[in-house]
Amino acid sequence: MRTAIFPGSFDPLTQGHVDIISRASNMFDKVYAAIGCNSQKKPLFPLEKRQAWLQTVFAQNPSVEIVTYEGLTADFCKRNNIHVIVRGIRNGKDFEYEQQMAMANRVICPDIDTIFLVASPALAHVSSELVREIYRLGGNYDLFLPKEIANL
Amino acid sequence: MRTAIFPGSFDPLTQGHVDIISRASNMFDKVYAAIGCNSQKKPLFPLEKRQAWLQTVFAQNPSVEIVTYEGLTADFCKRNNIHVIVRGIRNGKDFEYEQQMAMANRVICPDIDTIFLVASPALAHVSSELVREIYRLGGNYDLFLPKEIANL
Amino acid sequence: MRTAIFPGSFDPLTQGHVDIISRASNMFDKVYAAIGCNSQKKPLFPLEKRQAWLQTVFAQNPSVEIVTYEGLTADFCKRNNIHVIVRGIRNGKDFEYEQQMAMANRVICPDIDTIFLVASPALAHVSSELVREIYRLGGNYDLFLPKEIANL
Amino acid sequence: MRTAIFPGSFDPLTQGHVDIISRASNMFDKVYAAIGCNSQKKPLFPLEKRQAWLQTVFAQNPSVEIVTYEGLTADFCKRNNIHVIVRGIRNGKDFEYEQQMAMANRVICPDIDTIFLVASPALAHVSSELVREIYRLGGNYDLFLPKEIANL
Amino acid sequence: MRTAIFPGSFDPLTQGHVDIISRASNMFDKVYAAIGCNSQKKPLFPLEKRQAWLQTVFAQNPSVEIVTYEGLTADFCKRNNIHVIVRGIRNGKDFEYEQQMAMANRVICPDIDTIFLVASPALAHVSSELVREIYRLGGNYDLFLPKEIANL
Amino acid sequence: MRTAIFPGSFDPLTQGHVDIISRASNMFDKVYAAIGCNSQKKPLFPLEKRQAWLQTVFAQNPSVEIVTYEGLTADFCKRNNIHVIVRGIRNGKDFEYEQQMAMANRVICPDIDTIFLVASPALAHVSSELVREIYRLGGNYDLFLPKEIANL
Repeated sequence: MRTAIFPGSFDPLTQGHVDIISRASNMFDKVYAAIGCNSQKKPLFPLEKRQAWLQTVFAQNPSVEIVTYEGLTADFCKRNNIHVIVRGIRNGKDFEYEQQMAMANRVICPDIDTIFLVASPALAHVSSELVREIYRLGGNYDLFLPKEIANL
Repeated sequence: MRTAIFPGSFDPLTQGHVDIISRASNMFDKVYAAIGCNSQKKPLFPLEKRQAWLQTVFAQNPSVEIVTYEGLTADFCKRNNIHVIVRGIRNGKDFEYEQQMAMANRVICPDIDTIFLVASPALAHVSSELVREIYRLGGNYDLFLPKEIANL
Repeated sequence: MRTAIFPGSFDPLTQGHVDIISRASNMFDKVYAAIGCNSQKKPLFPLEKRQAWLQTVFAQNPSVEIVTYEGLTADFCKRNNIHVIVRGIRNGKDFEYEQQMAMANRVICPDIDTIFLVASPALAHVSSELVREIYRLGGNYDLFLPKEIANL
Repeated sequence: MRTAIFPGSFDPLTQGHVDIISRASNMFDKVYAAIGCNSQKKPLFPLEKRQAWLQTVFAQNPSVEIVTYEGLTADFCKRNNIHVIVRGIRNGKDFEYEQQMAMANRVICPDIDTIFLVASPALAHVSSELVREIYRLGGNYDLFLPKEIANL
Repeated sequence: MRTAIFPGSFDPLTQGHVDIISRASNMFDKVYAAIGCNSQKKPLFPLEKRQAWLQTVFAQNPSVEIVTYEGLTADFCKRNNIHVIVRGIRNGKDFEYEQQMAMANRVICPDIDTIFLVASPALAHVSSELVREIYRLGGNYDLFLPKEIANL
Repeated sequence: MRTAIFPGSFDPLTQGHVDIISRASNMFDKVYAAIGCNSQKKPLFPLEKRQAWLQTVFAQNPSVEIVTYEGLTADFCKRNNIHVIVRGIRNGKDFEYEQQMAMANRVICPDIDTIFLVASPALAHVSSELVREIYRLGGNYDLFLPKEIANL
């Protein structure tokens, strides 16, 4: 069985995340949507809410499994025998950050590889960081969330 | 009457801001130099000082009007019937950030558009962030401010 | 009257060009869609076809005027008293090329300025160069042309 | 059976190509190393040589199959029921070009997706274009070819 | 005597820093490895440890001298009659940040110039920031440190 | 004696080239301004003219020596015991091209290193390619040449 992982903090879940995870689930038998829980980074939305969003959106997709983990993504992959990390890229700046992470992960564990999918054009402006900024400024951030969870 | 807005925190006002606002004022009947006041982001320089700088520099330019606002730029535009946001770009990194903001603003309000002007070459190294860093390290940051306000 | 120019070779006209020219026509009283005719660069599509495409697409938009010119864009602007050049940008690579052109045009003629609009997300993959490549490889390039001209 | 395609002109085959194809062959049951034959682009090395290089290097890897094709990659994928295109990226410039191609391919055929692998750091300087330039200038280009084919 | 400075916070020292300083020491008679001590930025590793790392790694290289300084790099250069700043670059994002700093330093002191070296390919994924992130997540960050100091 | 080389085709010589060579001549005892003569690339301006330009501009700078060479820059460096190549960079796109060349040169000859200088802001828009384009379109390209040679 070919498995892959899409790690993230999903703070909040965006249409961009849903796009990448769905497309990856066409390529692999199982894709873990893995919520990284890092005690030092304080999320805007509670873990329970982020789990619920992913469960709601992927309820009908049996290839997607929602999990949580602590520590390095590479260490979680080793413990769970996962060899492919999936990441989405919107632009050249994203790419350069992700390139460093992918290279570092191969140093930590040489048999883990990372594949990148390009964000669908209509979603290329959506980042969790942007949604958080709109939230903080009192804007209508629901516009940028997946429809299924916009009022969740 | 064709109006546009140049939003920013002007913390501090730089030669780069003055360059872009002046050039935009040649293209539109009125340009709002709009100081975004966001309660969560603590500025280095007080609002009064930032207002005074803009007023001093643009005292002779009747097309430029200094205003302050809270919340999203797009919401301020809607309330004031402004359809064009003006932003300056120095390099490709700036561009990718501004591209996301411009796309997001069109999602929030489809009849607001953003135009970009390229920073004049001699000013391309000046960012407010850089001036703040020089200030914090005890350097002579006046070198990077518009002449009219260098000792204000 | 505020006028602007969108220069290009339109070889072929793409949805991206139409998007930028239409949006610019909301900001200015008149926008010249100006076909640059450079004897040394051999276009794939004949001038007549490129003119017809622009005329068809903008038939209902009285703010857009189709013209042709030879030589430098900056020289055409000087002769016709145009002070604003409009260009579209899709990504950071586009930006760096356009930045150099904008700076050079200001050296040639200091009172000509260039403004940039960001390509609408759904059109960010469309360049004339790409359409020409698909054409040469025998692919269905009509998919990438504006609907009004797809079979023209 | 999960299949993918790595399209290219392999003019010449580089260590970078070999790295990406090998890593992709760990993720899919079959990877086509597909030599695009475009009558308008004149290659430096003859097709026979490029085929022989690929066959030599991947002789021991049963997951890799060498094929040739004409026309668009997306059309070849449709005819052969391939849904994943694999491409390597070395830097942000590569990314922006590949991003446009990936988006265009999804317009041509919505159920074809493209995944990107980052070139291994030690190979990030190797492009076919560079090797051709060294060849033309009379330099020792064997240094940049996979060891198995360096004197082929 | 030709001298240069490689300023940094070395928090921690990485293989990338060692690579750039060593290569610079082939080009100049003396290279200062200068630890910037900025009271506002709290480092992860104490100054003593960062000094000890540099001293251990460059013990055999008489051209490298380890120093500490406060305030602006340009002010330290002026006080010590240093005219060349050396910086390493890994990718386009690094470049744009460093370009601004280099331009700003020439405004502060016109006879200080900055030269850039490209990170060696095998080290291009290593940044202090990345190592700090791995440290915080409980990963094995020794993998990314120079061998001489990995257990120091 | 510390020597360096600034290789180029100088087709034509620009203010940008002069800026970089002059600044490099402050850092090294001798800087070769080396005109690469590649039989396959047809220059716009004859070799004699390009040599005369360099000689005129650097007549008063005894550290600069004008030479011509064929083949790879790295091979010329090896024959002449030169260990440092100097290149100018204007933006991120330039950087990525130059990064590949620098890495490739170290593969060809490990003891040749490349240093980069950032183009002075006021000159960042000037490339030989741009000047050639202005020349071909009948524009006043003298505006972009060093003053000493503008009518040479």
